Amino acid sequence: MNNEQINFNKYPDGMPQDDTFKYEEIDIKNPKNGEIQLKTLYISVDPYMRGRMSQGDSYVQPFEVGQPIVSHIVAQVTASEADGFQEGDIVTGMLPWRKYNTVTSDKVNIVPSTEVPLELYLSVLGMPGQTAYHGLLDIGRPQEGETVVVSAASGAVGSVVGQIAKIKGCRVVGIAGGPDKVNYLTDTLGFDAGIDYKDKQFAENLAQALPDGVDVYYENVGGTIADEVFKHLNRFARVPVCGAISSYNHPEDDIGPRIQGTLVKKQAMMRGFLVAEFANDFKNASETLAQWVHEDKIKTQTTVANGFDKVPEAFRNLFTGDNFGKQVIKVADPE
Amino acid sequence: MNNEQINFNKYPDGMPQDDTFKYEEIDIKNPKNGEIQLKTLYISVDPYMRGRMSQGDSYVQPFEVGQPIVSHIVAQVTASEADGFQEGDIVTGMLPWRKYNTVTSDKVNIVPSTEVPLELYLSVLGMPGQTAYHGLLDIGRPQEGETVVVSAASGAVGSVVGQIAKIKGCRVVGIAGGPDKVNYLTDTLGFDAGIDYKDKQFAENLAQALPDGVDVYYENVGGTIADEVFKHLNRFARVPVCGAISSYNHPEDDIGPRIQGTLVKKQAMMRGFLVAEFANDFKNASETLAQWVHEDKIKTQTTVANGFDKVPEAFRNLFTGDNFGKQVIKVADPE
Repeated sequence: MNNEQINFNKYPDGMPQDDTFKYEEIDIKNPKNGEIQLKTLYISVDPYMRGRMSQGDSYVQPFEVGQPIVSHIVAQVTASEADGFQEGDIVTGMLPWRKYNTVTSDKVNIVPSTEVPLELYLSVLGMPGQTAYHGLLDIGRPQEGETVVVSAASGAVGSVVGQIAKIKGCRVVGIAGGPDKVNYLTDTLGFDAGIDYKDKQFAENLAQALPDGVDVYYENVGGTIADEVFKHLNRFARVPVCGAISSYNHPEDDIGPRIQGTLVKKQAMMRGFLVAEFANDFKNASETLAQWVHEDKIKTQTTVANGFDKVPEAFRNLFTGDNFGKQVIKVADPE
Repeated sequence: MNNEQINFNKYPDGMPQDDTFKYEEIDIKNPKNGEIQLKTLYISVDPYMRGRMSQGDSYVQPFEVGQPIVSHIVAQVTASEADGFQEGDIVTGMLPWRKYNTVTSDKVNIVPSTEVPLELYLSVLGMPGQTAYHGLLDIGRPQEGETVVVSAASGAVGSVVGQIAKIKGCRVVGIAGGPDKVNYLTDTLGFDAGIDYKDKQFAENLAQALPDGVDVYYENVGGTIADEVFKHLNRFARVPVCGAISSYNHPEDDIGPRIQGTLVKKQAMMRGFLVAEFANDFKNASETLAQWVHEDKIKTQTTVANGFDKVPEAFRNLFTGDNFGKQVIKVADPE
């Protein structure tokens, strides 16, 4: 039985390339006391990881060149020398990109239920779901009847943001790229409107979808899309800033209208956040999200790439818009 | 005895010009029942008023062409037909730019004390003081030992912001234009550092004054000065946005780095505000500010222009940096 890992090979300039990553064959380690051996089932790729591929000031530590990249993973215990973990258990954790990991058992958590598709622990029941939940409810604080706009609306975070806003009784307008994603927002997820940012009439269509302006803008993309939304902010609007994916590979071009004047005119609030700051409330949020999934109030869309060799390509798809919903890589079936 | 008013004559394109204003001779009206006749003593000119000289979307109603401009005024009652007001009383209110106004008595408030210089009711004991107090304490929420940066730091609002921050035990760095203003910050107001934005070494000097970064940035100016401060924000920094005076006459040029990436990295908050939203707490703040002035914990600097004919010039000085501290116009002495 062979093992393999994907190392961070080189800081990319702009979009990550093939040489950003390097596959390496390694051994499978047997667990020592307190350790478990894990077979990787699903690997998550997420936009925030681009920040770890940059040197210098970021909110997350840069990946180390020559060391394996790390992300959220769903895995199955193949051998256990740790209390409370048995062969066959399904776990999640932040783990190196390897086919097999051997780690101390405190690095992972056993999933609360295996009756849902396991990849949901990388989307609505994992970090993206928490990010949607806390950014919207704790920072955006939408009230019934208000208008919520979310960008990257068909994505892992945006799709959950919009559906929670619907549960809370808001008018929800999602922004996404292309007719398929836009139709998905309205037809499948129940958004009130979906706006295609690739459409030449984007600004006009957005304005038309916002007769009552914007009370909460859940920001995922930045750039000119955000500039356009900001024109419609209402008085006392709130803007949770989760990310600005449009700029991740081109930070030097991220120039646009400064926001201060708009914030004063609208007495509006913007707040950048990282999901980790809400760690104390993860458990409550998880239970609520699981309940909503169970009741079919939150639907999910996943793009699954098959095979450990597809990880780099799947990562790049996040930035080209070629994924639809949550992007994961399936590495193996559970046993 | 003649009266005179200054009408809003024309929407200015960029910096207000002579033809933005038009003097008009009018009559003095005798007060009817419930009214008082007022002699203007001091007129306030404030940066936010530029917003009322623009058509379209702003947070304040535009001035009406052909009607007198309105601002905060200190006046003396010269005749009263209203309960609770006597000849000789000193009042403040939002009043038309006239040598004499005749208004219903609900338009003004009698000042709490005439033992302080009356022009203070247009600065630290008036709207600018409230703006400093609530923006800093209610939005910025500085904690003892934190670093507070304020721009337009020698101005009517900024100077009070910095002094309150000192009272609260913060390290205070002020940004102002030219050596006189910068020295005033450190030598007279007790700021820990003053940085001259006109200095070619501005960025380096600012960085040097911020060894522990910025926890609260009280934003008055916008533009490239703000861009530079944003580079130093600490995690969980707060940015009360009071204004962006650098852009008021050139909104079309207000282009710079978008802020979303910084807000996420720093989990930082920006909030635009108008002082009116804190109206319920004006009285408490007034008493506290008066106490600090009495104890000499808050010092003030006023630039006084003499004569009703100097109002337009004094207004323009706000945007050229030619005023120092609070800009007022003295129209008459109290009797």
